[in-house]
Amino acid sequence: MNNKKVGNQTVSFQSPPVVLSKFNAVGPKEGQGPLKESFDIILQDTYDGEKSWEKTEAKMLENAMRGAANKANIALDSIDYALAGDLLNQIISSNFAARQIGLPFIGLYGACSTMALSLALGSMLIDGGYASKVLCGASSHHDTAERQYRLPTEQGNQRAMYAQWTVTGAGSILLADTGTGPKVTTATIGRVIDYGETDANNMGAAMAPAVADTILAHFKDLNRPPDYYDFVVTGDLGAIGLQLAMEILKKNNFNITGQFTDCGVMIYSPEQDTHAGGSGCGCSAVVLSGNILDRMLKGELKKVLLIGSGCLHSTASSLQGETMPAIGHAVSIEAN
Amino acid sequence: MNNKKVGNQTVSFQSPPVVLSKFNAVGPKEGQGPLKESFDIILQDTYDGEKSWEKTEAKMLENAMRGAANKANIALDSIDYALAGDLLNQIISSNFAARQIGLPFIGLYGACSTMALSLALGSMLIDGGYASKVLCGASSHHDTAERQYRLPTEQGNQRAMYAQWTVTGAGSILLADTGTGPKVTTATIGRVIDYGETDANNMGAAMAPAVADTILAHFKDLNRPPDYYDFVVTGDLGAIGLQLAMEILKKNNFNITGQFTDCGVMIYSPEQDTHAGGSGCGCSAVVLSGNILDRMLKGELKKVLLIGSGCLHSTASSLQGETMPAIGHAVSIEAN
Repeated sequence: MNNKKVGNQTVSFQSPPVVLSKFNAVGPKEGQGPLKESFDIILQDTYDGEKSWEKTEAKMLENAMRGAANKANIALDSIDYALAGDLLNQIISSNFAARQIGLPFIGLYGACSTMALSLALGSMLIDGGYASKVLCGASSHHDTAERQYRLPTEQGNQRAMYAQWTVTGAGSILLADTGTGPKVTTATIGRVIDYGETDANNMGAAMAPAVADTILAHFKDLNRPPDYYDFVVTGDLGAIGLQLAMEILKKNNFNITGQFTDCGVMIYSPEQDTHAGGSGCGCSAVVLSGNILDRMLKGELKKVLLIGSGCLHSTASSLQGETMPAIGHAVSIEAN
Repeated sequence: MNNKKVGNQTVSFQSPPVVLSKFNAVGPKEGQGPLKESFDIILQDTYDGEKSWEKTEAKMLENAMRGAANKANIALDSIDYALAGDLLNQIISSNFAARQIGLPFIGLYGACSTMALSLALGSMLIDGGYASKVLCGASSHHDTAERQYRLPTEQGNQRAMYAQWTVTGAGSILLADTGTGPKVTTATIGRVIDYGETDANNMGAAMAPAVADTILAHFKDLNRPPDYYDFVVTGDLGAIGLQLAMEILKKNNFNITGQFTDCGVMIYSPEQDTHAGGSGCGCSAVVLSGNILDRMLKGELKKVLLIGSGCLHSTASSLQGETMPAIGHAVSIEAN
């Protein structure tokens, strides 16, 4: 029966879903970074006319999802399902965006791995015969995430030098069973891995083992050589987590250093003073729906593996002395 | 391509997944209620030897998932995926349970609709050819939910007479592509509906419109008569929400009053003083994996429609003046 399952954690699509369109919205800091040309909407300020940052985040996600549908000239009501998630308690950004969009909605929580998870499940819905079109999305906002997980940004606290900067941004991708564009060919669902990290400023260290676990599973399940992809990108380990993931992979005799980078490393320049780089569900969502897919559409990249990485702690679990488990979900996207 | 989609929101499975086994764990109050015979584990107290209620909740969910696998004599590592969610911020109960279980994990957030959502997606994974066995689960704990959403239970505040009582419980169902047992035949994915309710004690009122919307979509999509099912059960509207849902359905000329009830109404007796009845992801999870499936296995029920109902607010959204949107996801389970 499970004729599309390959190995322990991976599925291979028989009719790989097409990336029909993509759209994103980012905050002003992201709009000043090295990937600025690849963003559809750049907010002038972090509120964008809303009374709270939470409302801004929900609006960004709604606009990203509407934008993806519009760009493909697809009416919202001809889309079968929307799948989305975010970092906020009870994923309110996604719930409120879904209320405005009006589509049948599947709410996900995978922390910063959410964009990859929504693409993995969305692809299963299409390839499985349950949908023709699925709208996938994810969002985060620097100021909503920081006050929920760490400290309110208004306090102006000194950040740890190894901390990542939560991206203000939302990205959406419209998947379809027919059409022209890069295709989602496989997906690897991650396991929850916990090496005992407890510092909520050091998420890269918490996530690196989970990402390495998923990468090793992906290549083993599909029996693909390390150089199969011309671009392997995590989203988002940051500079320190990326280094740690490379070390774990090397210890497992697996070397993909040459083509391996991270959305959190890509999105800011060193001059922007974000320390270890970007994080948040919105980070891989806007880098994938921006720079990476742009390069695929231009023919610069042919085969891409995105490994979304999520740190699965809450303030309650950390206050109760729990460590921070993490997860990585991977999707491969390949040009025709 | 989408040959399994029926109407706007519903999918019909070509090879309906089998409910291979089920297992649940509940708190002492639930263990004294009218459904006590249908629970596998009844905790002696709400801590069960753990230092916090959050840890107790994660342990209940882990035990429910392990229990379902054990009861079917299936080794955990021969199960393809686990899907679960709960009410806590960042679904920590599910994340920590998944860490212990070790399976590839898909995290969901649908508030109290989560058990139905996990069964809907789990069935798509099996029927779609991506998995042979999927472990679905959901949990809630009265004291973790109350202190997160409302007030710490230690304060002993007077509860509103129309409030529901969050169930302490976790339920798990093992779905498989082969075997003997009732089958998940269809699933209807809900839309986010918001009638403007703002009182976090009145969740039944917030959820009733979303549940009615999904019920109407389900019967319309499949063109089934109102008396198709011998048991239509929401999870969990409570007594007030159930009444409101019936009124909305009647206004739409749809009458299923005879066979229509609610998991939150079933789980406690009036003497237990829970006011409007049970709520929480664990409520429909333990009533379905207990009483309802027991009656199906005994032949007392043949065709069941479960509509999981979730209220999609957070304390942050409510404090910012937002209303409480809600969602309902439905799965039909039919005996052979």
